[in-house]
Amino acid sequence: MRKFAIVGIGHVGATIAYTLVTKGIADELVLIDKNKEKATAEMLDLQDAQARLDSHTTIKAHDYAEIADADILFVTSGNIYALTKNSGDRWAEFKDTKQIVQDIAPKIKASGFHGVLIDVMNPCDCITYYLQQATGLPQNQVFGTGTFLDTARMQKVVGETFDVDPKNVTGYTLGEHGVSQFTAWSTVQVNGLAIESYQAEKQLNFDDMEEKARFGGWTVHSGKGYTNFAIATCAIKLSQAVLSDAKLACPCSSFNEKYGTYVGQPGVIGKNGVEYVTTLPLTDEEEEKFKASANFIRERFETLPKVK
Amino acid sequence: MRKFAIVGIGHVGATIAYTLVTKGIADELVLIDKNKEKATAEMLDLQDAQARLDSHTTIKAHDYAEIADADILFVTSGNIYALTKNSGDRWAEFKDTKQIVQDIAPKIKASGFHGVLIDVMNPCDCITYYLQQATGLPQNQVFGTGTFLDTARMQKVVGETFDVDPKNVTGYTLGEHGVSQFTAWSTVQVNGLAIESYQAEKQLNFDDMEEKARFGGWTVHSGKGYTNFAIATCAIKLSQAVLSDAKLACPCSSFNEKYGTYVGQPGVIGKNGVEYVTTLPLTDEEEEKFKASANFIRERFETLPKVK
Amino acid sequence: MRKFAIVGIGHVGATIAYTLVTKGIADELVLIDKNKEKATAEMLDLQDAQARLDSHTTIKAHDYAEIADADILFVTSGNIYALTKNSGDRWAEFKDTKQIVQDIAPKIKASGFHGVLIDVMNPCDCITYYLQQATGLPQNQVFGTGTFLDTARMQKVVGETFDVDPKNVTGYTLGEHGVSQFTAWSTVQVNGLAIESYQAEKQLNFDDMEEKARFGGWTVHSGKGYTNFAIATCAIKLSQAVLSDAKLACPCSSFNEKYGTYVGQPGVIGKNGVEYVTTLPLTDEEEEKFKASANFIRERFETLPKVK
Amino acid sequence: MRKFAIVGIGHVGATIAYTLVTKGIADELVLIDKNKEKATAEMLDLQDAQARLDSHTTIKAHDYAEIADADILFVTSGNIYALTKNSGDRWAEFKDTKQIVQDIAPKIKASGFHGVLIDVMNPCDCITYYLQQATGLPQNQVFGTGTFLDTARMQKVVGETFDVDPKNVTGYTLGEHGVSQFTAWSTVQVNGLAIESYQAEKQLNFDDMEEKARFGGWTVHSGKGYTNFAIATCAIKLSQAVLSDAKLACPCSSFNEKYGTYVGQPGVIGKNGVEYVTTLPLTDEEEEKFKASANFIRERFETLPKVK
Repeated sequence: MRKFAIVGIGHVGATIAYTLVTKGIADELVLIDKNKEKATAEMLDLQDAQARLDSHTTIKAHDYAEIADADILFVTSGNIYALTKNSGDRWAEFKDTKQIVQDIAPKIKASGFHGVLIDVMNPCDCITYYLQQATGLPQNQVFGTGTFLDTARMQKVVGETFDVDPKNVTGYTLGEHGVSQFTAWSTVQVNGLAIESYQAEKQLNFDDMEEKARFGGWTVHSGKGYTNFAIATCAIKLSQAVLSDAKLACPCSSFNEKYGTYVGQPGVIGKNGVEYVTTLPLTDEEEEKFKASANFIRERFETLPKVK
Repeated sequence: MRKFAIVGIGHVGATIAYTLVTKGIADELVLIDKNKEKATAEMLDLQDAQARLDSHTTIKAHDYAEIADADILFVTSGNIYALTKNSGDRWAEFKDTKQIVQDIAPKIKASGFHGVLIDVMNPCDCITYYLQQATGLPQNQVFGTGTFLDTARMQKVVGETFDVDPKNVTGYTLGEHGVSQFTAWSTVQVNGLAIESYQAEKQLNFDDMEEKARFGGWTVHSGKGYTNFAIATCAIKLSQAVLSDAKLACPCSSFNEKYGTYVGQPGVIGKNGVEYVTTLPLTDEEEEKFKASANFIRERFETLPKVK
Repeated sequence: MRKFAIVGIGHVGATIAYTLVTKGIADELVLIDKNKEKATAEMLDLQDAQARLDSHTTIKAHDYAEIADADILFVTSGNIYALTKNSGDRWAEFKDTKQIVQDIAPKIKASGFHGVLIDVMNPCDCITYYLQQATGLPQNQVFGTGTFLDTARMQKVVGETFDVDPKNVTGYTLGEHGVSQFTAWSTVQVNGLAIESYQAEKQLNFDDMEEKARFGGWTVHSGKGYTNFAIATCAIKLSQAVLSDAKLACPCSSFNEKYGTYVGQPGVIGKNGVEYVTTLPLTDEEEEKFKASANFIRERFETLPKVK
Repeated sequence: MRKFAIVGIGHVGATIAYTLVTKGIADELVLIDKNKEKATAEMLDLQDAQARLDSHTTIKAHDYAEIADADILFVTSGNIYALTKNSGDRWAEFKDTKQIVQDIAPKIKASGFHGVLIDVMNPCDCITYYLQQATGLPQNQVFGTGTFLDTARMQKVVGETFDVDPKNVTGYTLGEHGVSQFTAWSTVQVNGLAIESYQAEKQLNFDDMEEKARFGGWTVHSGKGYTNFAIATCAIKLSQAVLSDAKLACPCSSFNEKYGTYVGQPGVIGKNGVEYVTTLPLTDEEEEKFKASANFIRERFETLPKVK
């Protein structure tokens, strides 16, 4: 049976919960939030929906002991109010989310949880690394959504430019789930052709497309006060790859040996989490961007108090 | 192709949109809200998800002309802030929602929309009736979610009492989607047996179960500030019955000839909306409650300015 | 993770496999058939589909050891050629299926399988009982699809008679998944009303509807040589109730204490299989029919060689 | 509403029908087969399943007039018995399928059908072209599944070689849906890298992988007597791209201007069928193979009697 747990039942956590229940993905679901009234309310709202769904999910709330045997744990806590509207800076959440990790990691550890933890907090790379260390779970079992979402946004922007389904666009946005991210255009294909081969005909503005993808989240954020639909969709897709041991190639935030930090890079997702990381033949310029982004994350990470 | 439109992209409208897109139900979707930034943000967030979904939905925003050929129109506008927390009174929204109807109905009418309109605004019965008159659409083509949600809540409460799937519970909660609603216990079965037959063994407290169902929404509302998951699930299920011409029996808010008002009653939902209303063999006491609830709605309705 | 196994990859087994894979229900799936080429071919055909599906299922074939940790085991072996076309007699398969049980039950037992076994072989009730004894699994963990399918057929026939969705029809077809079955009309409701209450208005012919439901399978069988779609759909729905611990009320073939045999009766399906059986307030005539059907099954069962 | 029709209710047609109904994709479905008993039986089997499904589909049989307003028409007729087991030659069906086209095309034309026709008959490319001419539908509105399935098989074979999800494999198998097909290895990527870049490390045998993909169908065919699951999955995915106007890039059989024939080539699928064909930068050797395969098809096509 598929058992999921979510710590942090804000907009993202609640949307993940809703999707797991209404799509019949979860057989059992545990909701945990420090605001117990909120977690209870989401549980009740979902239970009210059950009579109208074909599937059934057993939903529980509040109890960390319940996550011991969960297959997947999403951590989606965060303080969206710390984000200055339109600021475009996920590091504004950093002060809050590091305290959240210090609060919840010991509870996760104490629960005996030994499944795969998917982090959706921001700043994603840094906090995922911190969470991995604080929970003591193996590195492969802890990863962040990272640039899986940014890559989806890049696919959308490119798809719109070419008037095709974003699924026709392959390739990678890498590095930080934040401003230092970049799209490795040398990896991007549209309808099976290298995007660069369209350049003459289409006069593409790569910088422009990259900016749109990078700040896509902020446009959403400024319009609705948060983002939840695309990020929840990404998080769930990653979890399904784990549960079915799909060995699906996804850019996401995992540990990079070379740069000594979590960073958005191509991984292969299976039952053990990130089964392995793949190395793309980036151009020198892309490699420099990746290095800069990874270093940026690591430097921030080093400001965090050590986990004892 | 299945074309949906939603007017009012708040918590409920956005959740309906998310579900239509992520479950691949809608081929085309139009989002309209007077807060254009909000509708745009929801559209963008959903488009960002497309690269991670197996299905594809063409999503548009803002344009009433686009709803002309929609199969289904959900109206989910409302002012949740008008609801005093825990007040339990959906009529607190009445002042706002009647103005909303006066604003949007002419636009719906002008668009040439001729599909089925499903109203999710509150106070549901009264506003659905008003919306039907103001849009000039045939009565069968305009109905409200009404007690379809309250019945789901009753099924949940009874299901929990018996420790069974809420889908094992059949029967009807009728009347106003509001405090004057009631559960027609004579119609309720659990595991195929009349609930009343368990009375001796289980010492059931019907009043208690009814209160829990009636105020279930308020518990959710007080915990999260709104309700969206169960109501969105109900609205979508009704729309699917229309699109597939299912002739599915559902309690919902439709016009009652005897009492001259919209009210939550058993209907059969098909391609024309409410294909017909069925009459249950209620007890005298239940019939009295239904009459009282219907009259309560009609009296409120009569305070509304006439539609010219 | 959800692990399913199927023993018997004929029309029904293959359709179950296809559904588990294409709906993303199974994370892992084991296919076993004495015709290894056939099981391999079905596995390959399903694997060929994977690139076009959003979900992923790990599919294996042949190995009984693989079913040790399966959550659900469907047994769908049978010899459809033993059925004389249009004969309407599932007992024609009896000679073959009892030998099949003698062949496969020891292998299932030896595998260490300890999940829930759902039997889809015919004659269903008798063979399910035999399979339960031969595998040594607890009675609650072994049940047959039984009249879950016949009830669906009754719902269809009644739904057509009333021109409504079969889901508007509740009630039970009970007894043998065979000719001695009967519909307990006293339990049947349409659109929330006892079907008998429509009698005056509709001049319903209950015998006629019952015949149509009883022989519905044979009409299908005579047209296509087998039945698979509805039975596969029923079997999967039962398995999903187990996996999600839904406690869903379903008529199916489980052990009846009073008559000392497996027979189609109302059960509540959860993680332990048949959690408990419920007793409906049948009329005297219906009770007689049930007794006769149960006795018919038991008498046949007693002709089987004892399991040592 | 989504209306589908299927002409030819054999293994493939029935599987498509089952999927459209059980996944809730079709609101309305028309089944046509010259063996009326068979089409009726499939319809009944699917209707028997409806009470156990969350969705509803109105299913009809036999009537060509019913397809006039269908959005999608699948043509899946064929004579599988004409295929010598293991022969590996889809042209063995040619004699039969060309007569089938002569029989059904006038009926399709007379019906007034003006939607998108997806051909699943063999030999696919030649028969799709013939069907397009015989129905008189615009070329974009008639296409065949072609190498969409062969590409899926290539993805599977490569995925297995690398132990990754077939969805990690991109690229194209082109040309005839038959023995003259080829995989354009220069277009194939695994985990975002050109497959050729793994050559040194993995010592890949491209000829071997290509053979496995090319004859994958025959392995299935020899084991079960037909193939249906993967081909049905491919056909449905193409139809969904049409209905949702996805503009999804898919290799499939469409008209190639340069070589004057239908052939498996990259197309972009939207509401008009094949919206346009894309040109891949093939190597000279691949281009030669494509030319040879296209010419092979055209020569066979030219043996067909002219459509008046």
